[in-house]
Parts: sequence; C-alpha cells; structure tokens
Amino acid sequence: MKMVLTDSDTLEKSVEKSQAERVEANHISDSLTLLLYLGLLVLSLLTIWLFKHMRFWFIHETSLAIIYGLIVGAIIRYSSNPREISVRTFTLLGNPTGSLSNNVTGAPAVTTADPLPPEKVLLNMLELGSSGNRTRVYEYDYARRLLNRNVNAPVLSEKATFNSEVFFHVILPPIIFCAGYSMKRKHFFSNIGAILTLAFVGTTISCAVVGSVVYGLTRLSRSLSGSILFTDCLLFGAIIPATDPVTVLAIFNDLNVDVDLYALVFGESVLNDAVAIVLAQSVEKYDSLAAGSATFEGGAIVTSVLSFLGVFFGALGIGSAMGCLTALITKYTLVREHPLLECALFILMSYSTFLAAEAAQSTGIVAVLFCGICQAHYTYNNLSQQTKRSTKTFFELLNFLAENFTFLYIGSHVWDLGFVATAFAAILLGRALNIYPLCCLLNLGRRKIGANKMHMLMFSGLRGAIAFALAIRNTSTDTRKMLFSTTLVIVIATVLLGGGMATQMLHWLRIQ
Amino acid sequence: MKMVLTDSDTLEKSVEKSQAERVEANHISDSLTLLLYLGLLVLSLLTIWLFKHMRFWFIHETSLAIIYGLIVGAIIRYSSNPREISVRTFTLLGNPTGSLSNNVTGAPAVTTADPLPPEKVLLNMLELGSSGNRTRVYEYDYARRLLNRNVNAPVLSEKATFNSEVFFHVILPPIIFCAGYSMKRKHFFSNIGAILTLAFVGTTISCAVVGSVVYGLTRLSRSLSGSILFTDCLLFGAIIPATDPVTVLAIFNDLNVDVDLYALVFGESVLNDAVAIVLAQSVEKYDSLAAGSATFEGGAIVTSVLSFLGVFFGALGIGSAMGCLTALITKYTLVREHPLLECALFILMSYSTFLAAEAAQSTGIVAVLFCGICQAHYTYNNLSQQTKRSTKTFFELLNFLAENFTFLYIGSHVWDLGFVATAFAAILLGRALNIYPLCCLLNLGRRKIGANKMHMLMFSGLRGAIAFALAIRNTSTDTRKMLFSTTLVIVIATVLLGGGMATQMLHWLRIQ
Repeated sequence: MKMVLTDSDTLEKSVEKSQAERVEANHISDSLTLLLYLGLLVLSLLTIWLFKHMRFWFIHETSLAIIYGLIVGAIIRYSSNPREISVRTFTLLGNPTGSLSNNVTGAPAVTTADPLPPEKVLLNMLELGSSGNRTRVYEYDYARRLLNRNVNAPVLSEKATFNSEVFFHVILPPIIFCAGYSMKRKHFFSNIGAILTLAFVGTTISCAVVGSVVYGLTRLSRSLSGSILFTDCLLFGAIIPATDPVTVLAIFNDLNVDVDLYALVFGESVLNDAVAIVLAQSVEKYDSLAAGSATFEGGAIVTSVLSFLGVFFGALGIGSAMGCLTALITKYTLVREHPLLECALFILMSYSTFLAAEAAQSTGIVAVLFCGICQAHYTYNNLSQQTKRSTKTFFELLNFLAENFTFLYIGSHVWDLGFVATAFAAILLGRALNIYPLCCLLNLGRRKIGANKMHMLMFSGLRGAIAFALAIRNTSTDTRKMLFSTTLVIVIATVLLGGGMATQMLHWLRIQ
Repeated sequence: MKMVLTDSDTLEKSVEKSQAERVEANHISDSLTLLLYLGLLVLSLLTIWLFKHMRFWFIHETSLAIIYGLIVGAIIRYSSNPREISVRTFTLLGNPTGSLSNNVTGAPAVTTADPLPPEKVLLNMLELGSSGNRTRVYEYDYARRLLNRNVNAPVLSEKATFNSEVFFHVILPPIIFCAGYSMKRKHFFSNIGAILTLAFVGTTISCAVVGSVVYGLTRLSRSLSGSILFTDCLLFGAIIPATDPVTVLAIFNDLNVDVDLYALVFGESVLNDAVAIVLAQSVEKYDSLAAGSATFEGGAIVTSVLSFLGVFFGALGIGSAMGCLTALITKYTLVREHPLLECALFILMSYSTFLAAEAAQSTGIVAVLFCGICQAHYTYNNLSQQTKRSTKTFFELLNFLAENFTFLYIGSHVWDLGFVATAFAAILLGRALNIYPLCCLLNLGRRKIGANKMHMLMFSGLRGAIAFALAIRNTSTDTRKMLFSTTLVIVIATVLLGGGMATQMLHWLRIQ
C-alpha cells in the first residue's frame, strides 16, 4: 500500500485507520470461525436428539461430534484462501565478543552477545519529513520458534486454531473434574487394587512397548530414522495410552452392564489419564536433561522418575487438600443458607485447585481429578439440597459441552496419515500386553476378571480428549507434527469404531 | 547470560532450555496472579455470607468485591518488582522511493516503502561456527503501538492485566444475558415509554452535557487543553452514563420496593448500557472519520448517527432472531425429552448470538440482551421443567461469578486520581439534567413519577461494569488512560456510596 508523504498527520491517521481495519478484520474472522464450530455443534446436538428419538443406538454423541468436525475442517480448509502476511525479517549475528560488524545478505546486521532471543522486539518506524522526523514505535511479542524455515518463503495466515493452552486451562478441567465428581466411589474403591495396577504398571508397559515397537519399525526406514529419536517414540508411547472410553461407558450406562466391569473401565481410564499426563511431562524432562545424548543417562532417568512421583503425588495432595478445605468451609459455616453463595464458593475452590497445582509446578488436571473425588466424598454431604442439584447440573453441562466441543475440534484437524498403520499395530500390541497379563496376575489375588471382561477392557481402549490435548501441546518440530496427526487419527478411529461396535462387542462377549 | 560457543548443539539445547524455563516462569506467574484474584473472591464471598448472617445490610456484595479488589491491587503493586524485559529495537526508515540507505543512530537501518507496520517480525539469529553456520528463526507477533516511548528507556514487565477483550467476550455476555433473561417483563413493558425515553434521549443528553462541561473545564487548564480533544470528552460522556445499579436493585429486591420504581431503574439501566456501548462506538467512528479536524464535520456526524442506528437495530434484530429460532427449535422438536441436550442447545444458541452479532460488525453484548429477553418470553415456555430450572441456575451462577469478579478487578485498578472532581460534578449535573426534565415531561402523559421517585432515580445512577469495560477498551494514549482512571474512581465511588446509602435514601424519600 504505497502512500504519498504529503502531510505527516494525515499519514499517521491513515496508518492508524488501516491498522484498526486490519484488527477488525481479524476479529470478524475469529468470530466467524468460532460461530462455525458452535453452529455445527448445535447441528450435532440436534442430530443426536434425532438418533435417540429414532432409537439409533449404534452411533454416540462423541462419534457424531467427530463426523461434524470433519465437515468443519473441510469447510475451513476449502473456503479460506490463506493470505500472505506482511513480514519483516531482521538478523542478529551471534558474536560472543560483542563487537559491532556489518554483514549478512547484503544488508547490515546487528550483533549480540546474548544467544537467547529477546522477549520483545520493538520496531521503530522513522519518517523523515520536511517539518521534522516522525517516529512510530510498535511492540512485537515473542510467539514461537520456527523450525526448518525457508528464509525467503512467504508466511501464510494460519488456519484458525485455538491455542493448545485453552484446552488445558479451560476445556479439560471441567471434563476431568466431572469424572471425579460423578464417580461411583463404592465400586471404584472395591476394585482399587486392579485399577491402580492397570493404571500405573499397565500404562508404563504400554508406553515402553509402544515406544520400542515404533522406534524399531522406524529404524527400517532410512528417512524416518534420521528425524525420529527414541525420546520422540517414548513420548508418543506416554501419550497414546491415555484412554477415554466415554463412549463405551455411556453405552454401559444405558445398558446397565456389570458394575465391576464399569468400575474397571472407568477407573482405569481416569487414572491412566493422570499417569499419561505426568509420564509425558517426565519424558520431556528426561529429553531436556539428557540433551540429545545417544546413550541412556542414568542420572537423567532417576531425576525423571523422581519428578514423576513428585508431580503425581503433589497433584494428589493439592487436590485432596482443597477438596477437604471446601468440605470444612461448608461444614463450619452456615453458608448453606445461601445456595447461590455456596455454589459459587464450590466452583471457585475447585478451579483454584487447578491454579494452585499449576503454580506449584505440578499438573492442574490431575489435581482437579482428586479434588473432584474429595468433593464428592466429603463436601457433597455438607451442601444444601439446592446446591447439591446446582453443582451436579452445572458440571454435567460444562462436561457435556466441553467434551462434544473437543471431539468436534478433533474431527476438524485431520491431516495426512503419516505412519498410522505402524502406530496402530503398536498400540493394539501395547494394550494387549497391558491388559491380559495384568488381569491374569490380578486374578490370582481377587475376584476373577473373566476372559470376556478382559476382551471388553481391551476393546475399551479408546483414545480421546487427553491424548489429543497432550499431542497438540507440542507441534513445533515436523516429527511432533507427525506424532500429533497420528494420535489424531487413532483417536478418531478408535472412537468411531469402538463407539459403533461397543454394543455388538458386549453381545458377542455375552456380558450382561 | 554469556555462553561460550563450544559446541553448537550444546548451545542450542541450552537456549531451548532457557526459553522453556522462561515460558514456565511466566506461566507460573500468571497462575499465581489468577489464583490471587480467585482467592480474594472466595474471601469476599465468605465475608458476604458473614455480613448477611450478622444482618449488616449497608454493604453489598459488589461493594465488598471492590474493597477486596483494592487489596489485590495493593498486593500486586507492592509485591512484584517489575523486572526488566529483554528487548531488541530495530529501525525501519520510511522512504517512498524504496532505495536502500545506511543511517540512523550510528547503526545501519533498513528502508521500506510501506508505512504500515508488518503483522509479524521474524528474527534470524545467526551463529557462525567452525562446523558451519547455525541459524535459529523466531517469530514475533504484532502486539500494540507504544506511544510517547523514550527510545532508551528499559521495558518493564507489565502488571498482570487481563486483555480487555476477555471482558467483552467472556465476562460481560453472561451478565447482560442474565439481565435480559431474568427481567420482569410485565412491569418493563408497562413502563416502556418512560424507559425508552430515559435510555435514548436521556443518555444522549447526559453524553452531551458531560462532554461539554468537561471540555469547557479543561480549557481552563493550559496543560490539559492541549492533550484533550473534544472527541475525547464526548467519548467520556458516552461511556459514563452507562449505569449499572445492580447494588441498588438488589436492595430494592430485598426490601420489595414499589414495582414501578424497580422497573424504571432496571429498565433504564439495562437499555442505557446498550445505548452507551453503541454511542461509544459511534463517537470513535466520528473520531476516525473527522480525522482530527478542528470543526464539526457534517458528513462524519451523519455517518456516525446512521452507524449508531445500524448497529443498535442490527443487534436488536440478530438477538431477537436467534431467540425466536431457539423457541422454534424447542417447540417443534421433542428435545425436551432430553433435558441435558435441551439445556446445552439453549446455551449454545445464546452464545452464538453474541458471535453472530460480532461477525456482522454490530455489537454482541446488545444482541445478547435482546436474545435474553426473547428467550425469557418465548423459549422458556417450551422448555421442560428440569431445563427451566437448569438454565435459570446456570445463568444466575455465571452472572454472580462474573459480576463479583468484575468489581474485584475494578478495585484492583485504582491509579492516580486525575481530574476526578471535575468529572464527578459534570456527571451529577448530566444525570440531573437527564432525569428531572424528562420525568416531568413524561408525567404529562402517564402515571405520575413522584418527586421522591425522581430523586431515587437520580441516586441510582451508579456506574458499574459496562462503563469500566468500555473505558478499559482503549488506554493507548495518556488522555485515554486518564479517562479510564477517572471512570474507575467514579464507578468505585458511586457503588460504595450508593450501595451503602441506598437503604437510607429509600427511608428518607419515604418510598415503600
């Protein structure tokens, strides 16, 4: 947009106006995108109603949400022509001695002794005018590191995508809290031994098996073996066991299946989400400590294991403490006289648990899970009738909206297929090696888990929201992008297939 | 942080690690800040309960929230030492002919023919190593324009502050929707003439009076008259009439005052929020069109008035349409068989109204108000018993949390006092010239509004959330910052005084 420098004030007003128009255009674009998502979510809810009304049991809400998500993704991809973004590149020449020098690409460069990128960049736009120099200063905030960037390639506007942090801070907490708050505690604790074993030991086994198998198979391809490190595979192995059988459980619920099976599937899925999150963090920590070393770093492994235990039990501690604190407050004050206050207090304490755990460098989502369990066990009994109902309704609503939105969002992200087949085989193998041996071991010491139940447990290994959120957190390298798209496809496939076939499987395995 | 360039890989890992640590530190800091806000919100709720329990009627929730906000503000200001942020400044020399030249501050500069700042800046950090050159590319996103920047001044970390857009997109919509949804429609529509007059004509009068008086008074001070333009005063005049007498209404409610008075105060406050929002937008539009001209631009005024009407009736149209659409959906499907689905649908349609209005370049908040009114009038009757209860509870909770959080946030922002006294007098004058003449006019044609009621209306001119949100939207210039802090103090003062004295006033004015 060439402008003639007639009058400095006019120029400045024009620039301000263009900037404002640009900001407004972005705002409208964002609103339209979110409107598209919500609109299709409304459509999927109406379709769910229609299917329930016509008694189509084979397809569940989350599966429908994914399918509508595929539609959203297609609309976004084929309707918006990514426009080129105006970009200015500057070069900083790393020079430890800190002396100034002129260099690089024919244009002058500035040198620095600090290899860290600055947190902000200020752009000083100077206009030389007859009436004096005018300067406009603009601030740019650090966004991210770009890898494998072709210096001269144009930068295109990104497909509208939500910050992954939104998932971890806004969308996942209600889902996980509701899982803890609405848990059927009696059966959970009577099967606690099996659940803990499957969650901790089983997830670790899955992680190791999947990681190793995927790593082994990538060695076969020369192109892949260069870019995929063992820690990448291990991270994938940590993320992918995070099962989320919401679909299967909903069907279990509708058909009133065996409470032990329900407790096993539910308990295992909830706890292995927690384990997966902390395991992923520990693998990342090991990665940063081992610093790309080709051999196993013993010290780094020990630190990572200690970090895992610290984060996990820290989250357990914070979550339980906040839950019990809320129980004490509701017991020793008469706040139940004012249901609105009581309910608001409950909600604030629960979300504060998330923040407290995050600030303590533990993980908020796991803390919120244990907080939910404590709230259900202790606080619930102190609440007034109205608040009992209000909190149940409030969190059920949030959970429902958040879950369906997540699966809609998952569906809109289908990219290329990567090395999906390899991964799929590895996962099935990892799940089998998790479920069957452990259940047989457990059968030695408790109420028998029948073979048909083991098969159902194996089948219920649907991946969902947590695996997706963990994978989307880090897509900075090409390898990570590929892991993400693979995770994506697996989530989608398992939900669609698993959800669709759950009723059939129950029938074939003759589970009541 | 000086690093020795021994090995390129080690350096890169160290840089990645330092970056990750920096990001983590920011994350912890943000979590702690939000935790501080929520923690003090919890304390304020407990205090509210305590006061209700001990029957202290003179202080209301919102007043308490503001006081606790003052505490939050003090804690933030005196506990965190703003640390210096690493910044790198680059200069772009505006040169229409586009030729390269070396210049400026002794260091080379790059020239550009485009006076618009780029949307992104890429920083290319180049390390010359023995084994070859390594380059790291970082992306910086456009944040804002810095005004009156001293080129060599260090940049300090900002006091933790929420993006004003969060208020407009997340916190205000539930407050306004709830106002529409829970409105006592019978008395509202029976007093509709008076309410519309007070809202439209009255707000315009207030705007003109406040704007003129403030402008006149600033001419007296030579320093102020240079920096404050008439449009700034007009904007202040548009923002400040946005009354929010939630406090007074709550007391009215508790004491069951005259329903006509309630309807007048409530209706006027709700509609003048809508008018204020659109009026502020229109003044900004006039400002951008008139481009700093010293005289009245007739064409710009006409455009602004048309823009006002377009935005307001556009919002009314979109809000009503979405409300009626929801009513049709709930009537002609049997979705009431599934209360969870029905409730989720209701919530999604209501928030989609906001997005649709924003995408249509109208204003989402006003649309959401009319949507709430339509939902209460049409959709509510079609809902199942359970959903009726769920939606009421859900929005009451959101409204309660959002309002108290807003006042807490308002309290934490008290700065210097600026030209508060001037503004205060102007506002009182503006309100008086709004209420008294109009009520006398109205008395000619309708049920008498007694003198004591007029006084109460005058008194109920508390400013609140809307005025705050509108003022915080634009704090780019020093003038705007001063207008903002003035608005702030006025909001706080009117809420504290008004809330505290409302009961007394009712007694003095002998209103039942």
